[in-house]
Amino acid sequence: MIIIIKPNTKKELVSSFVAELEKTPGLQAHLVDGLHTTIIGLVGDTSKIDIDNLRTNDIVEEVKRVQEPYKNANRKFHPDDTVVDIGKGIKIGGGHFQVISGPCSVECEEQICEIARRVKSAGSTMLRGGAFKPRTSPYAFQGLKAEGIELLLEANKATGLPIVTEIMDAAHLPLFENVDVIQVGARNMQNFELLKELGHTRKPILLKRGLANTIEELLMSAEYIMAGGNENVILCERGIRTFETTTRNTFDVSAIPVLKKLSHLPVVADPSHAGGINWLVEPLALAAVAAGADGLMIEVHNNPAKALSDGKQSLTPDEFDDVMVKIKNILAAMGRSIG
Amino acid sequence: MIIIIKPNTKKELVSSFVAELEKTPGLQAHLVDGLHTTIIGLVGDTSKIDIDNLRTNDIVEEVKRVQEPYKNANRKFHPDDTVVDIGKGIKIGGGHFQVISGPCSVECEEQICEIARRVKSAGSTMLRGGAFKPRTSPYAFQGLKAEGIELLLEANKATGLPIVTEIMDAAHLPLFENVDVIQVGARNMQNFELLKELGHTRKPILLKRGLANTIEELLMSAEYIMAGGNENVILCERGIRTFETTTRNTFDVSAIPVLKKLSHLPVVADPSHAGGINWLVEPLALAAVAAGADGLMIEVHNNPAKALSDGKQSLTPDEFDDVMVKIKNILAAMGRSIG
Amino acid sequence: MIIIIKPNTKKELVSSFVAELEKTPGLQAHLVDGLHTTIIGLVGDTSKIDIDNLRTNDIVEEVKRVQEPYKNANRKFHPDDTVVDIGKGIKIGGGHFQVISGPCSVECEEQICEIARRVKSAGSTMLRGGAFKPRTSPYAFQGLKAEGIELLLEANKATGLPIVTEIMDAAHLPLFENVDVIQVGARNMQNFELLKELGHTRKPILLKRGLANTIEELLMSAEYIMAGGNENVILCERGIRTFETTTRNTFDVSAIPVLKKLSHLPVVADPSHAGGINWLVEPLALAAVAAGADGLMIEVHNNPAKALSDGKQSLTPDEFDDVMVKIKNILAAMGRSIG
Amino acid sequence: MIIIIKPNTKKELVSSFVAELEKTPGLQAHLVDGLHTTIIGLVGDTSKIDIDNLRTNDIVEEVKRVQEPYKNANRKFHPDDTVVDIGKGIKIGGGHFQVISGPCSVECEEQICEIARRVKSAGSTMLRGGAFKPRTSPYAFQGLKAEGIELLLEANKATGLPIVTEIMDAAHLPLFENVDVIQVGARNMQNFELLKELGHTRKPILLKRGLANTIEELLMSAEYIMAGGNENVILCERGIRTFETTTRNTFDVSAIPVLKKLSHLPVVADPSHAGGINWLVEPLALAAVAAGADGLMIEVHNNPAKALSDGKQSLTPDEFDDVMVKIKNILAAMGRSIG
Repeated sequence: MIIIIKPNTKKELVSSFVAELEKTPGLQAHLVDGLHTTIIGLVGDTSKIDIDNLRTNDIVEEVKRVQEPYKNANRKFHPDDTVVDIGKGIKIGGGHFQVISGPCSVECEEQICEIARRVKSAGSTMLRGGAFKPRTSPYAFQGLKAEGIELLLEANKATGLPIVTEIMDAAHLPLFENVDVIQVGARNMQNFELLKELGHTRKPILLKRGLANTIEELLMSAEYIMAGGNENVILCERGIRTFETTTRNTFDVSAIPVLKKLSHLPVVADPSHAGGINWLVEPLALAAVAAGADGLMIEVHNNPAKALSDGKQSLTPDEFDDVMVKIKNILAAMGRSIG
Repeated sequence: MIIIIKPNTKKELVSSFVAELEKTPGLQAHLVDGLHTTIIGLVGDTSKIDIDNLRTNDIVEEVKRVQEPYKNANRKFHPDDTVVDIGKGIKIGGGHFQVISGPCSVECEEQICEIARRVKSAGSTMLRGGAFKPRTSPYAFQGLKAEGIELLLEANKATGLPIVTEIMDAAHLPLFENVDVIQVGARNMQNFELLKELGHTRKPILLKRGLANTIEELLMSAEYIMAGGNENVILCERGIRTFETTTRNTFDVSAIPVLKKLSHLPVVADPSHAGGINWLVEPLALAAVAAGADGLMIEVHNNPAKALSDGKQSLTPDEFDDVMVKIKNILAAMGRSIG
Repeated sequence: MIIIIKPNTKKELVSSFVAELEKTPGLQAHLVDGLHTTIIGLVGDTSKIDIDNLRTNDIVEEVKRVQEPYKNANRKFHPDDTVVDIGKGIKIGGGHFQVISGPCSVECEEQICEIARRVKSAGSTMLRGGAFKPRTSPYAFQGLKAEGIELLLEANKATGLPIVTEIMDAAHLPLFENVDVIQVGARNMQNFELLKELGHTRKPILLKRGLANTIEELLMSAEYIMAGGNENVILCERGIRTFETTTRNTFDVSAIPVLKKLSHLPVVADPSHAGGINWLVEPLALAAVAAGADGLMIEVHNNPAKALSDGKQSLTPDEFDDVMVKIKNILAAMGRSIG
Repeated sequence: MIIIIKPNTKKELVSSFVAELEKTPGLQAHLVDGLHTTIIGLVGDTSKIDIDNLRTNDIVEEVKRVQEPYKNANRKFHPDDTVVDIGKGIKIGGGHFQVISGPCSVECEEQICEIARRVKSAGSTMLRGGAFKPRTSPYAFQGLKAEGIELLLEANKATGLPIVTEIMDAAHLPLFENVDVIQVGARNMQNFELLKELGHTRKPILLKRGLANTIEELLMSAEYIMAGGNENVILCERGIRTFETTTRNTFDVSAIPVLKKLSHLPVVADPSHAGGINWLVEPLALAAVAAGADGLMIEVHNNPAKALSDGKQSLTPDEFDDVMVKIKNILAAMGRSIG
């Protein structure tokens, strides 16, 4: 940690500040005296120092962190890729690439089972479907809830695909007992009470980046889950909010290689939410694969115009078949494959 | 609602689409045929139409909404200002201006009672203090929780100031029984499960704008609470996330007059979180008052350098005294006053 | 164009407004009367109507455009891909993919010629190099100017690669007589005086997206050049400014397919500026290719640590060799190739 | 300047890097060795070091600047407020507050003279009017150019108000000989060739912040002008581009106190462009005054619905009269006044 002292600060004040800092066991403060600037380099375990409080000191101009504030999620302390075991023979990360697909919302048994069969035959290895739906409007369809999870389990029975579905409140956790991967949506990325509860489970968690959250904040939210003892975290880039309005969100494709450099956790991309429109799914999915993602999450619906949510960005099963062929081609060009 | 048809669409397809639209009772579709463009003007109660689904229709190029998607929060249907009765003789909105101040976190009885006395004597009419603290890092101080609420109630007893404190999970609601105003923080603005639960209470709710949420989304979140029957919603602008890094957030002062034009709900501003640094509190507080806010929320701490959170942006009680004098001067110049 | 009338406007005012609108030859106004809302659909040639002025009318609540404000750049009026002929046997667009590479700044003959030879042998088909350098600081290296262009022409003589270099002021245009492609940098994307002058030439123009400009604004700037009669415009996505600070800019990979859908002009991507750091060049370049770009612009320097600008984001020639192999693999997987 | 060394770097490499750094005369490098991290504090005159090049060194993890990159504009080296002398008895900065108002575009003699008389009688002390207009569309009105400047000079003759008008290209500079203040628009804030030319004049320059430019970049652009010897720079906040779409731009009111803290230059605000709509001008103007601005720039038009540009955001002279009364009230409450 680096502390920059205000210009023209009296030497005695600096000395007594240094003495104060060194009272914390294991910390050493090195003084660097410049022409216009005095800097203190603080070394040792600075993870418990509150950077904002240092800033309130009258002689401090600025404090800059040198080390990342996350540990469990940090590749520096865990150089090898984490491989998350989803169960049912499916792993993700460390070379394993998976495709998660299915409808935005689970609507009825026929719908979810029919889509599950189609996406499986196209090569999808996991099934998504929303049972609890976070909707901007209180008047919009809010999901089938417990019944939706039941229907997903039916679809799993029919196809063998592990299921991924979103949780919106820690109180609903008992309903997710048989769910294979619990998704935390973008709007709940900093719902810290929920993250803490998920840290006490051992379920794989698919953690979506919030639409105005930095890459560091995403890793800090992963840290919340991991600090509770659950290391099965899968990160998901799904587009951020910017000034551009042509696309629903701006797909931050750079987040994929950046996350993989900073962390050992698997990273998937969701081109459906990122672009918000069906004809963008293909180019964004291929871009994500080329950028090194460990997986994709794609919305597929058998009748998009009648979908209860997100029809606009869903692919039909036929369109999904075509996109999957291209995904496999790009993977092959990179020496990779699904599975 | 306006539906723009793709160029060169066959007339029969448009006619059958219009017929389909008019099947919904109470809706009428007017066809406007242009040289390059065909438009359908859809009138009647369009609030239950899913705009995204219309967009998936093959002949539709774009759909534009004409009416706002919120009703209960909409000034068009409720022209007079809402006055929220906080209790203990305090009202906000409709000409009533209030100042809410206190520490970021409640730390101990001495701290909260001392600060409460000081802010009261400076003219503050409500007391804030965090018991449940949403922190980016799992390793940071998370608040005193239930004990923090107890201490706030002590401070209320000592000073008579109504108390405002943040909720992070619907499951904690029983602890908030004697709290005067329940705050929903920026990170939970779209925690819809929490909003629904708060809609079932009759408590005044201070709803903070999320750091990447639009004004319309803030009003939709207010709508979630109001749809449950709780009309006691106070909106709060606290800064949004932009590319600028000199300030913690960008204080969107325009949101104050815009919210007051679109909605009848009271609007307060939080200059402490918006700027993130203590010397910015004064100019931003005065700007908010001049822009027409119904209240301010300001962090005050008796020892900022030792604060367990947000010390950097807190005023000392002496600084707060000075700022309050200036706030009163601006209010007076606008023919207003606190209370 | 759609005009939404304020609620409760008197019928006579609407009628006289409609009559006023129809005075413009070729325009027809269709009235759509709703329960809460009255809409006027304005059809015909609305391109000369000033939308902002309509908005100032007392009875107007909002005006929404239906047609895009650009014509020459619009794929609707020009369905086939434009192929820009660079000269020297090189074409871009309509299936032709090109790689433009070279140093940020031209520094000396040895440097530019050495790099030119290396990038050519790796498969690059055009040479970039800055002679006029837009630098944030007046104290930073500002480029070799006229001499830099001379050195680029030397490198062209030595290798045959067409050259691309940036213009910063219309007054410098005579110096660009033998330049193959004139680049307009992100900071000058809305330097309208410069765009107008370039519209009077017939040179290929590489137009970079401004860091806070929308896709529509980029197309409007292309329109400025095309309105002058110069249709040889190549669009370039190079990252936009967002709240994320891990990367220099946020590479908006979606802009590639969106631009190709909205416009017939070729689209290239600049992964060096987008990411701002050398290890991001490879994943972003591959993502751009997979998303359908018509070309790439990549910074290569033979000694990045001594580069006079942008060393941080430059590849060494050896690194560039490796990246080019992977680019060719992805192209092949898509049934494409360089040239 | 602080250089953070990558973990596990060999000691010899660090030593030779330090030796290399100290070859620059006047620079000293202090080594701070930590448990996980080695830091080098570089002191002395670091203004000529290219931070990006340091970053390309293989052993460097990150480089952080301690001092601001601007000098002439920096309050640290120039503690007293700069007072810019506009001429004609008008000064701005250092306690002098001025109101600049007039139409977006100069349209004809009658229009500009009529508006000039009205704004003067309301208390405006300077006249604005656009002769060269930067318009997003090549098909929109581009201004009366040289004739527009002539008409402004007529209005000055009629009223005595100094005139402020925008330049778009350095080649037009001779036309601005009798203009009192030359405005650089938001889109040209980083047109460095133009800034350099303006640095060679001694005219007061009103430099508008670009819509995606940081406060630091605005000060660096001021530095470009000042480095040429022209210290008469007035900074202008006019709104930045964010995700919010209810307002044209997001008025960054915090920029006013931040700029005044970092720099000694006068700071004015433009509430007309910031909000983009006439009913927002009053609250934003008052907010800017309360936040400590040295002046305001407000668009006034005698017939907004017929204005050739920006009618939507213009006040009528009557509305301007009202707003000026309120501006004077807020100024008075702060112990200030116009002039």
